[in-house]
Amino acid sequence: MICPGFIDIHNHLPQHAFAGIGEKELLPWLKKYVFPREKMFKNKEVAKESAKRFFEDLIENGTTTTLTYTTIHPSATDIAFECANKSKIRAILGKVMMDQNSPSFLTEKTQESLRSLLELIDKWHGFDGRLFYALTPRFAITCSMELMKEIGEIARLKDVYVQTHLSENQEEIKFIRALFPKCKNYTDVYNQAGLLGPKTIMTHAIHLNDEEIRLLKTSKTKIAHCPTSNRFLTSGIMSFRKYNKKGLEMGLGTDVAGGYSLSMFNEMKEAIESSKCLYYFSEGKSGSPMTPSEAFYLATLGGAKALSMEHEIGSLEKGKKADFLIIDPQKIDPMKSHSIYTKPEQILSKLIYRGDRTCIKHVYSGGKKVK
Amino acid sequence: MICPGFIDIHNHLPQHAFAGIGEKELLPWLKKYVFPREKMFKNKEVAKESAKRFFEDLIENGTTTTLTYTTIHPSATDIAFECANKSKIRAILGKVMMDQNSPSFLTEKTQESLRSLLELIDKWHGFDGRLFYALTPRFAITCSMELMKEIGEIARLKDVYVQTHLSENQEEIKFIRALFPKCKNYTDVYNQAGLLGPKTIMTHAIHLNDEEIRLLKTSKTKIAHCPTSNRFLTSGIMSFRKYNKKGLEMGLGTDVAGGYSLSMFNEMKEAIESSKCLYYFSEGKSGSPMTPSEAFYLATLGGAKALSMEHEIGSLEKGKKADFLIIDPQKIDPMKSHSIYTKPEQILSKLIYRGDRTCIKHVYSGGKKVK
Repeated sequence: MICPGFIDIHNHLPQHAFAGIGEKELLPWLKKYVFPREKMFKNKEVAKESAKRFFEDLIENGTTTTLTYTTIHPSATDIAFECANKSKIRAILGKVMMDQNSPSFLTEKTQESLRSLLELIDKWHGFDGRLFYALTPRFAITCSMELMKEIGEIARLKDVYVQTHLSENQEEIKFIRALFPKCKNYTDVYNQAGLLGPKTIMTHAIHLNDEEIRLLKTSKTKIAHCPTSNRFLTSGIMSFRKYNKKGLEMGLGTDVAGGYSLSMFNEMKEAIESSKCLYYFSEGKSGSPMTPSEAFYLATLGGAKALSMEHEIGSLEKGKKADFLIIDPQKIDPMKSHSIYTKPEQILSKLIYRGDRTCIKHVYSGGKKVK
Repeated sequence: MICPGFIDIHNHLPQHAFAGIGEKELLPWLKKYVFPREKMFKNKEVAKESAKRFFEDLIENGTTTTLTYTTIHPSATDIAFECANKSKIRAILGKVMMDQNSPSFLTEKTQESLRSLLELIDKWHGFDGRLFYALTPRFAITCSMELMKEIGEIARLKDVYVQTHLSENQEEIKFIRALFPKCKNYTDVYNQAGLLGPKTIMTHAIHLNDEEIRLLKTSKTKIAHCPTSNRFLTSGIMSFRKYNKKGLEMGLGTDVAGGYSLSMFNEMKEAIESSKCLYYFSEGKSGSPMTPSEAFYLATLGGAKALSMEHEIGSLEKGKKADFLIIDPQKIDPMKSHSIYTKPEQILSKLIYRGDRTCIKHVYSGGKKVK
């Protein structure tokens, strides 16, 4: 079988090393696992070894396009771009920015944070038509309004991507309310900073009110839906159906290491299964859980649209880049062969629920075999 | 690494072929997928090919003991025992019994259903100290009280296992209420039939009231918790913490094909992650989700206790049968090697969240290498 390469629109390169370890909610988990690990990326050897393995694991899992956070370190970010380039993956990367409420070893001075960007943007944004830059304020807790406004300016000036986190966890939302009393809600913080727009990807966006949904919709801001992570960190469940009805554009993100795996098969499965949970617990019988086709769309063409790359990737169409996977259908069938369940929707369901990296025989990126 | 073989205390051999295909709740799903498939097991070739592949897939996934439903067909059940014997797996199998509310092609006459049992029990129960028989009334919807009472008699007479389904789905519970107006609740139906007891395994047991919990506790009846299936069929989430506090004994079941995979790694992960969902949606901050150690216990020694086999299997101890797995720790580590996350609880967490059949190098059953 042939299938478009998967598009993972949210993950963290430095966190890959502890994927599968967690057991805490967002804010304590950041302190216990994330920040100590990200600190290590000052060391170029760590940065190189980690980036190499990260892109290798993405490709093994059939992901041919990734939108990724690195750390605050310009050197580690430069190394990540180099490794992405060598791996032949299509990648949008961004150096994390944070100038407040962070451990001292991960806090930059506002102006210093901005200066280091421009060199990276000039070197890598648009490289080989395959590598791009995303301005990456971690989230509004760790970024001053001054920093975020300057980032908004640069985004417009350089026409690069913007990625950040929005409305993941109730404790986080309370903290935001206290930090930005002049903003109407969490989304309005980014709105006032000038960070919303069609090339902005907001991750999680679980607990939005109607006004926030309207802000995202009118600004054409995109959402990275990360169901695996949202369950792993007990953050809640984003209502795909509600946002879908309101016309928001979404893709899927593994959010490693809030998520435990870079597998987009797992992410598609979680997207459907978590929407069933929401249907069971709050939307009731009048709701309608995500279908396998919708999950597959989010992992491919939906992701491409979220990255404004739908004319290049996300489906198998004439004129697009040849990013695709060769899949062994026997590997997803419980009986291995002679299956009597061969309707397209049954094959798609088996692909999502039983697919993993071992069913991917080959991966092609831009027509080149990379696995 | 070395680890006890996994114990899957609930699954359906004939349903394996459509694992990963579903999208309906229990009662319509039985009609659309389960019954038409089970009908095919009248054909001995289908029965043989399916059973062979089923036990092969269990062993590939590191399961060394299984409690399994076959179909209503005595011949297919005999074939399943033969295939289990050849595969060297430890297995408790039982012919499904159903004499009402079933399609005509899967309905037995009450007395006929009982007669065919005795030959199977005499031939296989206790075979090689490794194969055992479980009386298997499908669930109270498809079984008359007369049939269930006779099954209770045979259970006492022959000292065999009993397995059935309990309180999985709200529509099912409504149907039970209408069918058995003289019983106080769903559990009481099995109680009045004389089916509760220490060698009885009740599957699902999601929506129990306090009186039902007491009935199970005092009769020492065991529970097969099947979180993957319960989400897949939108049945609800069993409260592990509540039952655990009340002292109920539980193991894990993949419930293929209500579950989409025979992987007990996946089932352990789902057990933890679904308990997080329950915590998030109803138990609140005062609750406490299942821990990785608890999930590992359920998949090994907990399962052994549920099957009254804790003196033989479920842990690596002197005097027990040598059912164990050799696991490649590099395969569960995102970085493949040089991991800095090597505390026992971190390794266990990686095993549960990142483990799959590909990390199992070898499987031993009773000291014999079977993979």
